[in-house]
Amino acid sequence: MDRVNIGLIGAGRIGRMHAEHLAFRVPGAHLLAVADVFVEAAEKCAASCQIPSAFQDYHRILDNPDIDAVVICSSTDTHAQIIEEAAAASKHIFCEKPIDFDLARIDRALTAVDRAGVKLQIGFNRRFDPSFKRARDLVAEGKIGQPHIVRITSRDPQPPPISYIKVSGGIFLDMTIHDFDMARYLVGDEVTEIFATGAVLVDPEIGKAGDVDTAVITLRYVSGAIGTIDNSRRAVYGYDQRVEVFGSAGAIMVSNNIRDSAVLSDAHGVHGALPLFFFVERYTEAYIAEMRAFVECVQQDKTPPVTGIDGRIPVVMGYAARKSYTENRPVKLSEID
Amino acid sequence: MDRVNIGLIGAGRIGRMHAEHLAFRVPGAHLLAVADVFVEAAEKCAASCQIPSAFQDYHRILDNPDIDAVVICSSTDTHAQIIEEAAAASKHIFCEKPIDFDLARIDRALTAVDRAGVKLQIGFNRRFDPSFKRARDLVAEGKIGQPHIVRITSRDPQPPPISYIKVSGGIFLDMTIHDFDMARYLVGDEVTEIFATGAVLVDPEIGKAGDVDTAVITLRYVSGAIGTIDNSRRAVYGYDQRVEVFGSAGAIMVSNNIRDSAVLSDAHGVHGALPLFFFVERYTEAYIAEMRAFVECVQQDKTPPVTGIDGRIPVVMGYAARKSYTENRPVKLSEID
Amino acid sequence: MDRVNIGLIGAGRIGRMHAEHLAFRVPGAHLLAVADVFVEAAEKCAASCQIPSAFQDYHRILDNPDIDAVVICSSTDTHAQIIEEAAAASKHIFCEKPIDFDLARIDRALTAVDRAGVKLQIGFNRRFDPSFKRARDLVAEGKIGQPHIVRITSRDPQPPPISYIKVSGGIFLDMTIHDFDMARYLVGDEVTEIFATGAVLVDPEIGKAGDVDTAVITLRYVSGAIGTIDNSRRAVYGYDQRVEVFGSAGAIMVSNNIRDSAVLSDAHGVHGALPLFFFVERYTEAYIAEMRAFVECVQQDKTPPVTGIDGRIPVVMGYAARKSYTENRPVKLSEID
Amino acid sequence: MDRVNIGLIGAGRIGRMHAEHLAFRVPGAHLLAVADVFVEAAEKCAASCQIPSAFQDYHRILDNPDIDAVVICSSTDTHAQIIEEAAAASKHIFCEKPIDFDLARIDRALTAVDRAGVKLQIGFNRRFDPSFKRARDLVAEGKIGQPHIVRITSRDPQPPPISYIKVSGGIFLDMTIHDFDMARYLVGDEVTEIFATGAVLVDPEIGKAGDVDTAVITLRYVSGAIGTIDNSRRAVYGYDQRVEVFGSAGAIMVSNNIRDSAVLSDAHGVHGALPLFFFVERYTEAYIAEMRAFVECVQQDKTPPVTGIDGRIPVVMGYAARKSYTENRPVKLSEID
Repeated sequence: MDRVNIGLIGAGRIGRMHAEHLAFRVPGAHLLAVADVFVEAAEKCAASCQIPSAFQDYHRILDNPDIDAVVICSSTDTHAQIIEEAAAASKHIFCEKPIDFDLARIDRALTAVDRAGVKLQIGFNRRFDPSFKRARDLVAEGKIGQPHIVRITSRDPQPPPISYIKVSGGIFLDMTIHDFDMARYLVGDEVTEIFATGAVLVDPEIGKAGDVDTAVITLRYVSGAIGTIDNSRRAVYGYDQRVEVFGSAGAIMVSNNIRDSAVLSDAHGVHGALPLFFFVERYTEAYIAEMRAFVECVQQDKTPPVTGIDGRIPVVMGYAARKSYTENRPVKLSEID
Repeated sequence: MDRVNIGLIGAGRIGRMHAEHLAFRVPGAHLLAVADVFVEAAEKCAASCQIPSAFQDYHRILDNPDIDAVVICSSTDTHAQIIEEAAAASKHIFCEKPIDFDLARIDRALTAVDRAGVKLQIGFNRRFDPSFKRARDLVAEGKIGQPHIVRITSRDPQPPPISYIKVSGGIFLDMTIHDFDMARYLVGDEVTEIFATGAVLVDPEIGKAGDVDTAVITLRYVSGAIGTIDNSRRAVYGYDQRVEVFGSAGAIMVSNNIRDSAVLSDAHGVHGALPLFFFVERYTEAYIAEMRAFVECVQQDKTPPVTGIDGRIPVVMGYAARKSYTENRPVKLSEID
Repeated sequence: MDRVNIGLIGAGRIGRMHAEHLAFRVPGAHLLAVADVFVEAAEKCAASCQIPSAFQDYHRILDNPDIDAVVICSSTDTHAQIIEEAAAASKHIFCEKPIDFDLARIDRALTAVDRAGVKLQIGFNRRFDPSFKRARDLVAEGKIGQPHIVRITSRDPQPPPISYIKVSGGIFLDMTIHDFDMARYLVGDEVTEIFATGAVLVDPEIGKAGDVDTAVITLRYVSGAIGTIDNSRRAVYGYDQRVEVFGSAGAIMVSNNIRDSAVLSDAHGVHGALPLFFFVERYTEAYIAEMRAFVECVQQDKTPPVTGIDGRIPVVMGYAARKSYTENRPVKLSEID
Repeated sequence: MDRVNIGLIGAGRIGRMHAEHLAFRVPGAHLLAVADVFVEAAEKCAASCQIPSAFQDYHRILDNPDIDAVVICSSTDTHAQIIEEAAAASKHIFCEKPIDFDLARIDRALTAVDRAGVKLQIGFNRRFDPSFKRARDLVAEGKIGQPHIVRITSRDPQPPPISYIKVSGGIFLDMTIHDFDMARYLVGDEVTEIFATGAVLVDPEIGKAGDVDTAVITLRYVSGAIGTIDNSRRAVYGYDQRVEVFGSAGAIMVSNNIRDSAVLSDAHGVHGALPLFFFVERYTEAYIAEMRAFVECVQQDKTPPVTGIDGRIPVVMGYAARKSYTENRPVKLSEID
């Protein structure tokens, strides 16, 4: 397949970002249509990204035989349903994370995908960040020997609105889920047990909404390696995204990407730039690369680099973390699944 | 003006890069036509960047009343002529550096531009690099007080072909010219005297072609500040582009942009990534930003941030450096002009 | 008091180091005598550090009325006993960590110190490292607001002999104890609960000796802040000693001290020096500073910066960590004490 | 020779520093006497460093047959004379830089040293800085191939008193002289021609005293390599001491040593510590290492690592730079010598 015709479902913030990348930065991708329940959003997105059609009803996309693949950026509660329908319509699928918060629904969706033989890639974009990818590659090449300790720091510059927090599934399913994926990705190993601790230190409203805003999570891997993740909903200095893998023969550390490299030395100190503000800035290249990878998998009939199972496991980890936090004890993943 | 209709003249390497940016990354820009003496190059560029028309003869662009502006990326010896013609056709002009190697021709071109009242922006892209721009802004804000010393390191990863070297005008007019612009830009001051020293250390063929491949240039500014530039045609570790401005109240240092931030510590040392390979990689954002600035100047009827005079002065500096090198003595710019 | 006359008890590796510092680098300190059960060690130390007397029996030091203070560097099992005797002899006391592994014995020793009204400083040297001290000062000055997350990385370049491991009290009491002190020091807050996880990944012999060689420990503070420590007995790239305190208004990160600042860029990458090898190299300044602080406290009748209680609490934390690891559950410090 | 008995001549600031190192940090060194024309300075130095004898007249040191070596830290105008006398007395000699400002006097002193067969080491301490030494070693090992460009940045945190400036010999002989030595040391090659430019930008009083306070110097090496040095008498952020050697196979960069490694990230930026304040702080280890090297050369009958010729050449370079600055033209070293 030379050109992949794509329909975009969901034209919110992340959908518009993908639209722009697919329109201008992903060779081989061709956006044929965009759908959004707010049809004005679809129309606006179509106008700015030269997409021929804009619909309110995504079934118009699924019904179009010219469309090879869909990119699902609608609200989380619609993901599983759309995956099933898209699979039934023989469309390849890129779906934003998470697939769903309900494991049974996830399993139904993955079964539908398997049965249809279409490709499904989940939007764990951070795997495509050049620095994290380089870290993973160095681990896979054995440059640090056997992994012993994985450290992930993941802090947002500011919390989302409380209205979002309430439907987010909680910090472990909303925010740590990315780090759970990273923890698996970096060392190519599975986690068996999780201990999560959390606190409300950023905003008491988050606590009233039943969530925490600060967390430290410990992971046990099958190999015996130990992981640790720390999260905060607000780092005043910007999006803090670092990882470290320590092993028998060395360690790899990934630091933040900064806004510019100008450093000012004055009588008071040496002053450098802050990290890039948030995910849109930090992960621009990663978002483009994940779309290129998806299009390439469709074109070349390859397995996507982030599969449906890769989308499912972090949800299990999120539940294990939540249970661990609630019960203040380590929880095995097998208790959830 | 809402949308700026643009004609691209020259579809070589740099022309194709600008085409891609204008097509996909510069809001408000609309590429209507591309011309190249090798018409296949123009056609290929048109195909990949969705440009409606491709011509062999750039006059087809100048004759098109729908076209507001031209972007000149043809060979250097054609720049001045095309500028004059484009001005006569009332097109706004973006022209790659240098305008010309002949000061009289430059002056004729600038006079034509003035007379026509069109805008002319010269392609000194490095000014638009976020880190260099930040350095300039910090200097302009007075964060380092009065500038005393300017240091510019500018080394290419590999020399161009000898055939190119022969027609390049020599290292001072071909390579250092960017650094001469940077030297003016960073401190907002003019250079009065230049002392250049050079050597053939990279490739004896470059010497046989009458050029040097390694150079150190000292600059005297009107203010009394002193500048120093060092150049090499080959840094094996990649494109080395750093600047430093030292003043009465501090200093600003800009280091290289690296390929990724993963750092490996092993029993032998701590190993980081190399600088981005060459100008296309290092200055991507700068190239886009300069085009955005040009389009914005046309849209909003503003003076371009790099004017015709800014294009002329570094040529004078290049001649002064060459004379200085040849005669092994400091040369005043007034000796050239 | 102008000059503090000091007797050194224990002339092993750490004792000899302190002797050299007290002899040559601590103004106001005057070493009058050294004692070691291996009298040759005492004599050798005396010779190299210009100490007038060398004894086998440390009581000769306690009995000398000219001696104002003792520095206890003998084996851990003798610390508590010598503290009690030194207090009874009205000597001020510097004692290497840990005071003892038995909390009742620690309490008896601290009671004796209190009763005698002598000073007692415990050898948590890392508090005196200029970078960690700077981090603590910045936290205390409120530069990062309220602390939310404390991260401590503490990895040795190589494990001690298995014979040492067997009598060390285990990784949590031998190695993490320093990090427990650092965790308290950095934020000036107490830990209430600990969850420890460990693994044998470096050397199976360590496992056979009943210990682990890799650990990640989570701490809950009174304030609600969360801490995380990671330990390894072997980092092939050298002594890895970093801390980070993240708070409501910023974060402080302390990186490793490297052997030199020469960085080599070649065709393969950018290569820097490794961290300083081990505690003797990394903490030289800290060891000197703690002795200067001790001597100054004696001279100026001030409370030592690391008190007996500061020596006791990390032992409690070590037991809590061990219990947590054994029972695989979070353990409150109140369960131990 | 097991122990080297040393007499110190000159107990000013630098003399007292060497005394402390020789007394406490240089194994094998034994300070027998100190002399200073201000005998109180000698006595004070003797008291604080446990030196048995203090004299006004340095001949008392030269006349003492127990003394093997002298360390000359008296005022520059006395160096050559004392070297000659010390050589006549068969003492090995360490002499602070410069030997003298008069080349004929330098030559007489070096001849006296040669005739007596004693060792002479000149106090170019920076060669012993671990980072600069590492840079030199990497160059000597061929890690960067053939050296092409040498860059030295050397800026003081504050100018000396005007009274000192007046007798200093000027910036090129007082301050750049260290960099001239570094330029030779780093690449093991000789300089043939110098172009110096200077300005009075820091303090007009320095200009009135006939000197400049800011300078950029270009060097041509025998090999064809090019060097560039920049100097300022005042960097508000502290002692700025960096070097870079760029060659056919790579580059080595040495950055500043900073006061501590704690880095604060807040809403405004990322803030690190300043460089160590001045030479005493930055070069402590280097000063100790040069004395250890001197004592070792005496003990083992080896050639000192910084010879009399190494002391002479930078003086020639200083004169060439001064002449170049005055005449605003490149000056060959052969014009001076």
